[in-house]
Amino acid sequence: MDEIQKSLLEKIADIHEVPEGAYNIRSNGQLEGRNTTANIDIVTKKDEPGIDIIIKPGTKNESVHIPVILSESGLKDMVYNDFYIGEGADVTIVAGCGIHNCGVDTSEHDGIHTFYIGKNAKVKYIEKHYGEGDGAGERILNPTTIVHIEDGGYMEMETTQIKGVDSTVRDTKADLADGATLVIKEKIMTHGRQTAETNFTVELNGVDSSANVISRSVAKGESKQVFNSNICGNNQCYGHTECDAILMDNGHVKAVPSLEANNLDASLVHEAAIGKIAGDQLIKLMTLGLTEAQAEEQIINGFMK
Amino acid sequence: MDEIQKSLLEKIADIHEVPEGAYNIRSNGQLEGRNTTANIDIVTKKDEPGIDIIIKPGTKNESVHIPVILSESGLKDMVYNDFYIGEGADVTIVAGCGIHNCGVDTSEHDGIHTFYIGKNAKVKYIEKHYGEGDGAGERILNPTTIVHIEDGGYMEMETTQIKGVDSTVRDTKADLADGATLVIKEKIMTHGRQTAETNFTVELNGVDSSANVISRSVAKGESKQVFNSNICGNNQCYGHTECDAILMDNGHVKAVPSLEANNLDASLVHEAAIGKIAGDQLIKLMTLGLTEAQAEEQIINGFMK
Repeated sequence: MDEIQKSLLEKIADIHEVPEGAYNIRSNGQLEGRNTTANIDIVTKKDEPGIDIIIKPGTKNESVHIPVILSESGLKDMVYNDFYIGEGADVTIVAGCGIHNCGVDTSEHDGIHTFYIGKNAKVKYIEKHYGEGDGAGERILNPTTIVHIEDGGYMEMETTQIKGVDSTVRDTKADLADGATLVIKEKIMTHGRQTAETNFTVELNGVDSSANVISRSVAKGESKQVFNSNICGNNQCYGHTECDAILMDNGHVKAVPSLEANNLDASLVHEAAIGKIAGDQLIKLMTLGLTEAQAEEQIINGFMK
Repeated sequence: MDEIQKSLLEKIADIHEVPEGAYNIRSNGQLEGRNTTANIDIVTKKDEPGIDIIIKPGTKNESVHIPVILSESGLKDMVYNDFYIGEGADVTIVAGCGIHNCGVDTSEHDGIHTFYIGKNAKVKYIEKHYGEGDGAGERILNPTTIVHIEDGGYMEMETTQIKGVDSTVRDTKADLADGATLVIKEKIMTHGRQTAETNFTVELNGVDSSANVISRSVAKGESKQVFNSNICGNNQCYGHTECDAILMDNGHVKAVPSLEANNLDASLVHEAAIGKIAGDQLIKLMTLGLTEAQAEEQIINGFMK
């Protein structure tokens, strides 16, 4: 790997050389490195591009890193990754994609990730997206995440789009069985002429299933964001969505959070707020000696942390 | 007017015989009575069914009642009513429709109301919908309200669907100029196999324009409700929507409140909550000697008040 590839890897997966535990590193459409463990197997798919990640029942405190990096301009990469999380396992999965595009052609990575989370299994899934490079070529990332959680299963999904992604459509669909829990924390920052669309659909099918979707975003420059979420309460369940967006410059944000109660015992709550940074917050920090730009930066960092 | 018509009139407009001030009473598609005043004129449209209500600039503390009642089964009534509210006027307008359907055919009233609210004018608009009758014929009400508010104008809209309306699609569209304010308070109760759909679109175009949309609903029986709202902040403005729904029996509620910020100085907030009556609220009232049904009724009445 060259320095650009190493730097991308650090940005999206917080790793320097090779990670501990199981991993699969994909670079410019090719397998760059793979490691499996006694409990975690990674198998290349035969019928389509992508991998199967198979985690044995009861696997505890292990992690899988599956970063994807693109440093060639004009590459369109698409993968189907399936995750089979065995009953009672407790694992951390780190995915993410970094694109360095110095050329004039569009670089695009579309990943379709499907999770089959077994009974009482617990997954923490971290996904970071990042783009860089001063070429005119666009950097496009379209992640699709499909989550099936069995009885008592738990998934926490932390997705972050740091910067530099010109266009993204992020689709997430989940269905939850009895006692299953899904927590989604999304952070998006857009600038320039970027566009970002997020679509969440969560079906709360099981008794005592619950979902908590928290989205925080900042729209700078001329960027445009759309946030759609749809929580369907089909049983005795609890759903909560929260969407906070900060506007800067000429940023546009549209939030369409839908709640659908199809059962008497469904309890669904939503909050949303869109606006610019409050003037008094800025003034307070500026009286402490910060410039306006520094004060703004500090507020944004706190908001996105 | 017969007793049924008089009773409907009381339910939707709180009036016994003829109201004070200007009025226009429409019964079974025909003009039943009209009164104009020095400041308020009512003119029958020539090109389509409906009336023009013309209120002189500066008119204060006057009211207009324009109830519509249908007691013949199988009647389909459609009217276009336009309201011209002069600069600086301050008036109350009471509309509403009551349907008594004892027959087997569908009775339907569709009213398209358009408001032109002049500079600094203030309007309180009250609209009640009610259906009754033990026939198999459906009672359908589809009100459309279009509101244009000029600089500094104010409109408060209180719409209530009491009971007995089998199917309703309620469309409200508004655009607001500088300093204009719109307050919407909607209350809907559905039961049986009723369906109710509400669509609000508010364009906050003017500097310091503001909108506050508050929807409270109760879905009983097998009834289905959909609440769509779209607040567009196109200038320095403030928008707030709030949607609370109580589920009973097998009631279904879908809430899709969209916020769209197209200006840095737009501030938009939304809250929604859907769920059944909290068990501890019921128990508290039952310890005071109420039956469960009485306790439920008291909570619902308080919620819808």
